[in-house]
Amino acid sequence: MKIQGTWYRSLRETDEGAIAIIDQRRLPHELRWVELATAAQCAQAIQAMWTRGAPLLAAVGAYGLGFALREDSSDASLANAYDTLLATRPTAVNLRWALDQVYQGVKALPEGERPGAARAIAANLCDEEVETNQAIGRYGLEIIEQIAAARPGQPVNLLTHCNAGWLATVDWGTALAPIYMAHDAGIPVHVYVDETRPRNQGASLTAWELANHGVPFTLVVDNAGGHLMQHGLVDMCIVGTDRVTAQGDVCNKIGTYLKALAAYDNGVPFYVALPYTTIDWSMQDGLAEIPIERRSDEEITHIWGKAATGDVIPVQITVDGAATGNYGFDVTPGRLVTALITERGIVPASEAGLKSLYQAPATSTGTAIP
Amino acid sequence: MKIQGTWYRSLRETDEGAIAIIDQRRLPHELRWVELATAAQCAQAIQAMWTRGAPLLAAVGAYGLGFALREDSSDASLANAYDTLLATRPTAVNLRWALDQVYQGVKALPEGERPGAARAIAANLCDEEVETNQAIGRYGLEIIEQIAAARPGQPVNLLTHCNAGWLATVDWGTALAPIYMAHDAGIPVHVYVDETRPRNQGASLTAWELANHGVPFTLVVDNAGGHLMQHGLVDMCIVGTDRVTAQGDVCNKIGTYLKALAAYDNGVPFYVALPYTTIDWSMQDGLAEIPIERRSDEEITHIWGKAATGDVIPVQITVDGAATGNYGFDVTPGRLVTALITERGIVPASEAGLKSLYQAPATSTGTAIP
Repeated sequence: MKIQGTWYRSLRETDEGAIAIIDQRRLPHELRWVELATAAQCAQAIQAMWTRGAPLLAAVGAYGLGFALREDSSDASLANAYDTLLATRPTAVNLRWALDQVYQGVKALPEGERPGAARAIAANLCDEEVETNQAIGRYGLEIIEQIAAARPGQPVNLLTHCNAGWLATVDWGTALAPIYMAHDAGIPVHVYVDETRPRNQGASLTAWELANHGVPFTLVVDNAGGHLMQHGLVDMCIVGTDRVTAQGDVCNKIGTYLKALAAYDNGVPFYVALPYTTIDWSMQDGLAEIPIERRSDEEITHIWGKAATGDVIPVQITVDGAATGNYGFDVTPGRLVTALITERGIVPASEAGLKSLYQAPATSTGTAIP
Repeated sequence: MKIQGTWYRSLRETDEGAIAIIDQRRLPHELRWVELATAAQCAQAIQAMWTRGAPLLAAVGAYGLGFALREDSSDASLANAYDTLLATRPTAVNLRWALDQVYQGVKALPEGERPGAARAIAANLCDEEVETNQAIGRYGLEIIEQIAAARPGQPVNLLTHCNAGWLATVDWGTALAPIYMAHDAGIPVHVYVDETRPRNQGASLTAWELANHGVPFTLVVDNAGGHLMQHGLVDMCIVGTDRVTAQGDVCNKIGTYLKALAAYDNGVPFYVALPYTTIDWSMQDGLAEIPIERRSDEEITHIWGKAATGDVIPVQITVDGAATGNYGFDVTPGRLVTALITERGIVPASEAGLKSLYQAPATSTGTAIP
């Protein structure tokens, strides 16, 4: 993660025993770091979308559980904080996984050892996540290298939806990791960035990330990807995901399915990058089984932006009182996905593909056993 | 066209010999009628998007040519105004057609008769357009009636993209005409309205139209349509078009192709409503032949909306200096279109379908011979 030449992580420990994260609601207009030192602050940061991205908010949750134990390391405190933090984003499979890691790791310990152990688990979880994303990046890089090798000197054009970069993770990102690695390796890459309405994570986060890292990009509206692919302007699509079922169906930001359809119709490879923590072994048919969160009307009727005065304010963009349907995610059936790029390799988006890398858990807890 | 219970046309003659149109840039926040009395004003209204929609701007162009002749009815004035008005939107096939109607209708006349004849042609063109749209509406209504009859008492759910309602035409609209007729006939209809980035014609125009007419609707982001169709929430899609080629390929607002793909993938019928003036017989392969206009960066980087102060202002929604690719239209291949709904009937989106209703012109002028 590079901001004007300096490497950062999206989550770092401070000398005062807090964690510092970026308040992402202020991007791309202002880079503001905020410090979280209590479980309540971590819960608020997740719930109010200061922090987002399944892997990153999972890490914030893990630290939050540790902070709770620092205040009160009893069994009751542990259970209570676990529930509170999980409720901030009930559908995030990574969050549950991260909270489970801390919970399981400390519950057998004497109370006095719990806070330190929790912090160590959370820190280790962050380090592992960075390694995981680097591994995803290296596998994805191989695909980009192959495309580049077939057309020497020409840029590789990628299309991505939403933000699965380092702002969504502790570092590197998932879908963007291969792109950063290719750019750093001197391969000419160019990224079409979907705006990603209604929250505009593409326009406000991915574009900002790429600009800071120096990766050439073109911001397009969500409507444009089909046209780009029809005209051969996209060599590969790559997106992240919030949940992948045992049969390889991909739940991701609303609109991902439309891009996958266009990729399929035009023979453009469509890749999904994910760490193993995103696999939900308890579900098979993503369309039938994954609950899709409906979010507030205001995300559609109003949009935040920088006015001529420099103030970042909301403006209303539709007729007063318009009813809206704000669906947060959609499901792309595995049949439309060229392959899944994981930290263990590149496999078909199918049960056979996933089982060639991972062992499904004996019980349906939804958590992968690596 | 109904605004709070009163019928209007989107273009009407005033007692002073001007025409009144709605300044659509101010919608949905303010309904402001503006009067145009010169060719220059008509050209500006088209170019600056006060008025839009292929059929409506064609009518404004026809009146503009008449206004030019009122000032100077010479051959030179006629030719000059024709060129000026055509240049306001060079890719609009209907505009050329309407200008040709006036040009051909007056050029053999004595100069003194030209202004009156031009006005009469323009007025007649408007009346005919209203009749055409009513005919499209009646054919489309049959489809809605069939869906309603199969599921008595349940609303028919439609999805539309951009604005092909009465704000895009003199009255009724093309894609929305069947919906208004169904609603007026007591059939319960409900419309999913695509926001239609980057200019948000769905959020600002279609939602406003439907709200004024009392038709229930739900505004969704452009990303949502695939999810809706996957879950059986859409019974039919219906859109307008800017140009249909002789083989039935459909050029329409960017993003139409993505919805057609989703409809096809989910077995949802996808209809395109058009008057014969939209058919471009000079082209076959829409993807290869139709030039796609690229518009300004600002349409993507900034968005207009109503601030808390009540002022309608632009706000910047992405990082400073972001490169953008603002493609205005895309092409939906005829293979993805269930049928074309024209003023003469419902036919497959193919050369055979179109030729079953119309006779292609002997020369490739791009204008249909009805």
